[in-house]
Amino acid sequence: MKDTGSLINHYCERFTLIDEKEAPKLMTIEHELKTSTAVPKCGLMMIGLGGNNGTTVTCGILANKNKLSWLTRRGEASANYFGSFSQSVTVKVGMRQSKDPSGKKTMEDIYKPVKDLLPMVKPEDFVIGGWDINSMDMYNATLRAKVLEPGLIQQLEKDLIKMKPLPGVYNLAYIASNQEDRANHIKEGTTSQLIQQVQEDIKNFRTTNKLERVVVLWTANTERYYEKDISNLEELEKLIKENAPLPPSVVYGVAALREKAIFLNGSPQNTIHPALIELAHKQGSYLAGSDFKSGQTKYKTAMGDYLIGSGIPIRSIVSYNHLGNNDGKNLSEPHTFRSKELSKVSCLEDAIMSNKILYPKGQEHIDHTVVIKYCPFVGDSKRAMDEYTSEIFLQGTNTIVSYNVCEDSLLAAPIMIDICVFAELFSRISIDSKPMGPVLSYLSFFFKAPVTNHPEYVINSLGRQKDMLSNFLKACAGYGTEDNTMMAFDF
Amino acid sequence: MKDTGSLINHYCERFTLIDEKEAPKLMTIEHELKTSTAVPKCGLMMIGLGGNNGTTVTCGILANKNKLSWLTRRGEASANYFGSFSQSVTVKVGMRQSKDPSGKKTMEDIYKPVKDLLPMVKPEDFVIGGWDINSMDMYNATLRAKVLEPGLIQQLEKDLIKMKPLPGVYNLAYIASNQEDRANHIKEGTTSQLIQQVQEDIKNFRTTNKLERVVVLWTANTERYYEKDISNLEELEKLIKENAPLPPSVVYGVAALREKAIFLNGSPQNTIHPALIELAHKQGSYLAGSDFKSGQTKYKTAMGDYLIGSGIPIRSIVSYNHLGNNDGKNLSEPHTFRSKELSKVSCLEDAIMSNKILYPKGQEHIDHTVVIKYCPFVGDSKRAMDEYTSEIFLQGTNTIVSYNVCEDSLLAAPIMIDICVFAELFSRISIDSKPMGPVLSYLSFFFKAPVTNHPEYVINSLGRQKDMLSNFLKACAGYGTEDNTMMAFDF
Amino acid sequence: MKDTGSLINHYCERFTLIDEKEAPKLMTIEHELKTSTAVPKCGLMMIGLGGNNGTTVTCGILANKNKLSWLTRRGEASANYFGSFSQSVTVKVGMRQSKDPSGKKTMEDIYKPVKDLLPMVKPEDFVIGGWDINSMDMYNATLRAKVLEPGLIQQLEKDLIKMKPLPGVYNLAYIASNQEDRANHIKEGTTSQLIQQVQEDIKNFRTTNKLERVVVLWTANTERYYEKDISNLEELEKLIKENAPLPPSVVYGVAALREKAIFLNGSPQNTIHPALIELAHKQGSYLAGSDFKSGQTKYKTAMGDYLIGSGIPIRSIVSYNHLGNNDGKNLSEPHTFRSKELSKVSCLEDAIMSNKILYPKGQEHIDHTVVIKYCPFVGDSKRAMDEYTSEIFLQGTNTIVSYNVCEDSLLAAPIMIDICVFAELFSRISIDSKPMGPVLSYLSFFFKAPVTNHPEYVINSLGRQKDMLSNFLKACAGYGTEDNTMMAFDF
Amino acid sequence: MKDTGSLINHYCERFTLIDEKEAPKLMTIEHELKTSTAVPKCGLMMIGLGGNNGTTVTCGILANKNKLSWLTRRGEASANYFGSFSQSVTVKVGMRQSKDPSGKKTMEDIYKPVKDLLPMVKPEDFVIGGWDINSMDMYNATLRAKVLEPGLIQQLEKDLIKMKPLPGVYNLAYIASNQEDRANHIKEGTTSQLIQQVQEDIKNFRTTNKLERVVVLWTANTERYYEKDISNLEELEKLIKENAPLPPSVVYGVAALREKAIFLNGSPQNTIHPALIELAHKQGSYLAGSDFKSGQTKYKTAMGDYLIGSGIPIRSIVSYNHLGNNDGKNLSEPHTFRSKELSKVSCLEDAIMSNKILYPKGQEHIDHTVVIKYCPFVGDSKRAMDEYTSEIFLQGTNTIVSYNVCEDSLLAAPIMIDICVFAELFSRISIDSKPMGPVLSYLSFFFKAPVTNHPEYVINSLGRQKDMLSNFLKACAGYGTEDNTMMAFDF
Repeated sequence: MKDTGSLINHYCERFTLIDEKEAPKLMTIEHELKTSTAVPKCGLMMIGLGGNNGTTVTCGILANKNKLSWLTRRGEASANYFGSFSQSVTVKVGMRQSKDPSGKKTMEDIYKPVKDLLPMVKPEDFVIGGWDINSMDMYNATLRAKVLEPGLIQQLEKDLIKMKPLPGVYNLAYIASNQEDRANHIKEGTTSQLIQQVQEDIKNFRTTNKLERVVVLWTANTERYYEKDISNLEELEKLIKENAPLPPSVVYGVAALREKAIFLNGSPQNTIHPALIELAHKQGSYLAGSDFKSGQTKYKTAMGDYLIGSGIPIRSIVSYNHLGNNDGKNLSEPHTFRSKELSKVSCLEDAIMSNKILYPKGQEHIDHTVVIKYCPFVGDSKRAMDEYTSEIFLQGTNTIVSYNVCEDSLLAAPIMIDICVFAELFSRISIDSKPMGPVLSYLSFFFKAPVTNHPEYVINSLGRQKDMLSNFLKACAGYGTEDNTMMAFDF
Repeated sequence: MKDTGSLINHYCERFTLIDEKEAPKLMTIEHELKTSTAVPKCGLMMIGLGGNNGTTVTCGILANKNKLSWLTRRGEASANYFGSFSQSVTVKVGMRQSKDPSGKKTMEDIYKPVKDLLPMVKPEDFVIGGWDINSMDMYNATLRAKVLEPGLIQQLEKDLIKMKPLPGVYNLAYIASNQEDRANHIKEGTTSQLIQQVQEDIKNFRTTNKLERVVVLWTANTERYYEKDISNLEELEKLIKENAPLPPSVVYGVAALREKAIFLNGSPQNTIHPALIELAHKQGSYLAGSDFKSGQTKYKTAMGDYLIGSGIPIRSIVSYNHLGNNDGKNLSEPHTFRSKELSKVSCLEDAIMSNKILYPKGQEHIDHTVVIKYCPFVGDSKRAMDEYTSEIFLQGTNTIVSYNVCEDSLLAAPIMIDICVFAELFSRISIDSKPMGPVLSYLSFFFKAPVTNHPEYVINSLGRQKDMLSNFLKACAGYGTEDNTMMAFDF
Repeated sequence: MKDTGSLINHYCERFTLIDEKEAPKLMTIEHELKTSTAVPKCGLMMIGLGGNNGTTVTCGILANKNKLSWLTRRGEASANYFGSFSQSVTVKVGMRQSKDPSGKKTMEDIYKPVKDLLPMVKPEDFVIGGWDINSMDMYNATLRAKVLEPGLIQQLEKDLIKMKPLPGVYNLAYIASNQEDRANHIKEGTTSQLIQQVQEDIKNFRTTNKLERVVVLWTANTERYYEKDISNLEELEKLIKENAPLPPSVVYGVAALREKAIFLNGSPQNTIHPALIELAHKQGSYLAGSDFKSGQTKYKTAMGDYLIGSGIPIRSIVSYNHLGNNDGKNLSEPHTFRSKELSKVSCLEDAIMSNKILYPKGQEHIDHTVVIKYCPFVGDSKRAMDEYTSEIFLQGTNTIVSYNVCEDSLLAAPIMIDICVFAELFSRISIDSKPMGPVLSYLSFFFKAPVTNHPEYVINSLGRQKDMLSNFLKACAGYGTEDNTMMAFDF
Repeated sequence: MKDTGSLINHYCERFTLIDEKEAPKLMTIEHELKTSTAVPKCGLMMIGLGGNNGTTVTCGILANKNKLSWLTRRGEASANYFGSFSQSVTVKVGMRQSKDPSGKKTMEDIYKPVKDLLPMVKPEDFVIGGWDINSMDMYNATLRAKVLEPGLIQQLEKDLIKMKPLPGVYNLAYIASNQEDRANHIKEGTTSQLIQQVQEDIKNFRTTNKLERVVVLWTANTERYYEKDISNLEELEKLIKENAPLPPSVVYGVAALREKAIFLNGSPQNTIHPALIELAHKQGSYLAGSDFKSGQTKYKTAMGDYLIGSGIPIRSIVSYNHLGNNDGKNLSEPHTFRSKELSKVSCLEDAIMSNKILYPKGQEHIDHTVVIKYCPFVGDSKRAMDEYTSEIFLQGTNTIVSYNVCEDSLLAAPIMIDICVFAELFSRISIDSKPMGPVLSYLSFFFKAPVTNHPEYVINSLGRQKDMLSNFLKACAGYGTEDNTMMAFDF
């Protein structure tokens, strides 16, 4: 680390408590927010490194690092971080008043890039590695993914061909049977041995690359739901000792946390059991998940804010998806799809529960269907077709149909970068002298089914998730938060 | 008025000033917010009373007042206020902490209906009247509109048939030539005389109905842009004296403000010139506008928040609309459409200007096209088809196509009710002993092209407009505003 | 019958035989087409009478018989037969040459309504009856269906309330378990007794109403596929004798054919086994099926003609549907959906097999997915969302997305009328002194999975199905068929 | 020419004449169809060679000639002629009866590629040349077009860079003012001189390349409608003599026909006046047009066949398009768009006129709107959004919305190839010893607004256009035409 100093800011939190008699009590609580300014050398180990997400993140970071340009049918393209909250979003940090040439007072909003708020890892500085159950080198894996332009891949060939994933933990019982062909590069051993092997991998990666921090990110296949609810660490340790066939994601999670790496889960399965949280807590490490919120569900939580927030009750949502990448293939079997479905259908619950005029007690049900189909021809170009039907004034109907086409991995990759950047940052922040976590709930914005430190309290509203993250970052950076009332401006 | 008391709350506004050196200065300013609790008997005079919006508002209020139900193809329907922010939206007013049966601390959000925050006019209590250039009674006008179900209209026949609009101010130079057939019920006279006649209408309406407050709402045809920029009241008075052919909306505006009525403009034309604002100020009255934001543009400003707020630069938006009601017919001529187009295309400007990573200086242009076509067969059932094309990671493309079907008037009517309810409320609120206005900028949420007291500062972002309105109402009601940082909750 | 005469026309069929050596042999074969002109008094017995299709057909026929008009939100509506090939389509019967005022030769096409080509039953003359597993009278069943406007249903109340379905044959093993609640009106007995009871119902209906012809039409729930392939009549009789639990549709089929009624199958299950065809043949009766082709599949076979017929290879089709009527509910279970899926996915096979340039041997596969979801809120208003992805020149891609909204029953009802009208007509036609049938293959136009007298030869192309039906009708009516070469016209 | 022989076939045309008394008269007329089998060496001169269509045709032909493959994001692609009727479509030429292993009679349809029916120019054998108002060489023009993949263009660089368009005829009065920048390579002179120069160009091209036949194809910008109706050749010659500023397309047409080249018009403007037809007739040459039917209109005429042919009256069609290529730019001005609009809106007229049940006399109107917008960001990737609203049974409504994305030039290029191939072929065919033409009406399938030899008689129905073309080709090739009645097969 280049610097061992800290940035300390004080922030006055503001919220309202409602007591039993419905009376509001306005609370203001002063906090000390301390951010270590020493940005560590950080490694990013992806599980599923050779998959579409893994190769896209890798190439995207290399393209940006080398400031590459390449030819496409549409003209010359060049590297960017579009779609990344940390790298491409700005937040309002305040207002400026001045005078125009005629002497009239004017005001304007001042925005600042998120990346400039606090010292964060630059994506280009991540050292990339990871595991895959398929042995293909990263150059050929990138070609196989069919996500990126040939003109870009060719420039990266030399770098990519040298990168080879470590052998992966594999258990066919947890993924779709159609993945069997792909599994040619796997670890063998008891559960305990597998954990040990992954720990060795992390250790080696850390040592070889002289890393101060490692982030382990699950971006591999969706696993089926794990039927057991491992409610405490003791139970988990017992299962490991007994050589119970744990889902691979749990094996990685345990290994990562034992190594004090940050563990992030980008797929929908229920990897983050209470026992894993307990382990993170014990180790002083961090975890977050689950399921990247990149496309249809992100749009859905924005639509929930929009419609329900306008007094319009959504009555049915039908969400169809099809895609032809390996994610779609894996999800084409019912037991893996079930995990995805569960992750996707509950995302409007907080919006519905918030409005008893539109959804009175006992009438909270909406027809909500999610379908994912495997359509090889479209490749990574995912198509989401949604229909939102709402009731409007005098029981008229409002129907909104949307058709969304996007390379699945191009939406996911920048979000993956965000999660890693912020997870590392949060590991350097303390609130009132206490470290954050162990669950990094402030990452809710990036997950379809956010896990929090309060199992009963989850925020899905996109607007509120974004407020939470932005305001927290601004507070840490010494900016206030805005209430937008504009009263002082005679608005 | 039933009550002459006041509700007084103190609110501590919070914002940040950025000085020349980019340093933040955190501001907290205490305000006294005083709301007169005496809800007046209020009249609503609509210009274009017999049009689709006018008849829908009228029938909707009557249906709710009488708690009507009616049979439709889909089963029994009953009156509601869906789509109304004031009547159907809830806001988070705070959190409650308690313990679950096992003694574990839990927390939950507490929401409250907007209508219960402060004493407001109940929509059913509005006394309805207004003007139309067509003489048809309200029963037949409602049938002509083809918006509502026969089963509802039949129950209202007796009430509606007695309601007849006052003759309207008419000037064919400002609307489409295809409206000529409809204009059989118009006032004659010099500009000055027309204003006088409208003033008499307002006076009579007030006296006859024993009203304490009158709101005059333009919901008639879109007029063409008025070429002159009437920059002060003196100039306006001079034009009136010279019998200049002012646009009818200006005639109504002047008359309403002279009568200390609140003047609201729901159409896109530039009625609200500086001179009109000056008049409102002088009269101690209020005005707001322009152009109800009910459908495509509202969605667009939500999409702007969603995409640009996710670091995804929108590069083109093509917005097609067609509808078959009289609004569509009037807009089928280029000079009236031009007003609408201007109102619709600039709604993403603040979002674009806020992000210099996605839109560097000189590259703020996006391809943005708005088309409105008249298609009689679809009637009031407006169809909006949009295509949003954005650049994503590594210059991939994200395309979102939406198709939105909705009865135009069923979306507009609840918003019209909102504007009137809040405009009346705001006329009873003072901030630090100063009345609000004269422009009611806090109504920006409801307008495509909001007019504010700061011509250079307009907020189009749907999320921010909503925050502004909600937070202001909560502050007046004695609730704090939330910063959503959740720090106190070890989130 | 009013008339015992016959209409005899001679038609010269024209086709080409290709021999082993690929040489064409032009064939012209003269046929005698004899149509009995005596239109019988005809009864229509629907299985599923109280369902959405059954009630819609019944009300539609009554509305047309009584030339009713009714008020809707959109204005006055009146009875029609739109969507019916027999009642609303015209066919080109020839050309007319004349001279224009200036003496110049002109030519024009002459079209004639299909219904005027040959003597057919008028839909209004059908005597309607049938069975249902639910006892609800037709008035309440029509309200339950939520298909038609209240203003129409109210006018038919008196007629409908008297109509009550006969108890139905019911076997939960063949439909979705969610239909159990509805089954309150069912026949009891051994398989043999059930057949007997249905035969009695038909006999009574015939006698009571003095009918000369009865058509029995299955428009009830989709059954699951029947696992046995009943390959001959002997086997079927044996199963009946052994009281094997036959699917209800087979029970009705056997009963209908034993009664010499025409049996038509509007649902996708494999009711029409070889044994049933043998029975029809033995009885001198007729049958046709299966699965009304009314919406998405009809469009798909038109799209196949359009795209493949333009040299554009479709590579993937994803067809999503959702609806909220009882058909959707029944299809929400996998075993009934399976029947529907099988019926829907093979409809492009003949188009694909016809073009070895686009689909070389071994490359006939296209990604083709069909999804049907139950969404109660949308009721009978079915929504079909399709995506067609095709390869074009130089391996570009053409993507066509369609969103189709239509009341399911309003599309099906006129087709049901067509099938009955033509089935009855075809029972009066002989080709070269031989009756048609037993399978009425010329009805292929109306079925998703047409059964023919040549199991190995099925036509799915919409264009060709229509040509076959139109040309056959024109030939019977004494019109020639057109080759559209226009050579004689110096075109 | 390799061969001076002829293929002679006799065909018995079949149609029905309807006399004044509505009685049908079945006509069978024997024709001698003679096709010269000597396929000439043929040149294709495109006007607008350097535009998107011109470069795409050129590269496509070169790619096929050299059997090229290239890498794309989606994997390896290779040259094809998808979308070409002549190269990629098959037609049914007859049936084959045989026996299956069990001795049972079977039958199957026999299909043959269109290109194998008669001796036609192979696209790869066209010698390509032409004109452009911009001087850019074909390599850079192809890059500018942004239609094709870099991996393909790079392989063609050496060929393309040598190809340079001849200077074009230019008159800004006939195209959009925004084309002015592009016009840096133009001919100067009087109208007569311009014609002369183009004739010289054709002569040189013919001589240099030793061509036996030249086809001149207008694929340049849409011109505005020419206000004069040049009703005979004398008048046209007079205008030329007087140096009237004729539209450039007319200048090319006159020059081409004077040179006995075939003149084809792919844009919508009214180039093909009676005078031009007279000139073609006099010269013994041929012409055809207008406006390539490749996308939205082709789909529309298929939808007309589908819906109206199913007894469903279309009541409104709203067709929105946007694109960002130079065609879109040129059409963004009202006077050029007007030509396009006229070409596009009348395409359902014959379908509407054919059905007096759905469209009784005086009620033939449908709401039909066509919009084209210029949206630079989407480039050549045209997006068509259509809404078809139809009335169905009992005045229900069927709404079909489609969204169609396709590279505009990739759809047009194969059709351009077809038109040239067939035009050349038809110039070698005589019917009853008379040459075809002068207007090649059998090409109607390829044009939005087909010109025929019978101005009052135009066929727009896609199905019928295709029948006409296919049946004519089959007849010339010695195959019969099929009536699809299947009577001989006991179907």
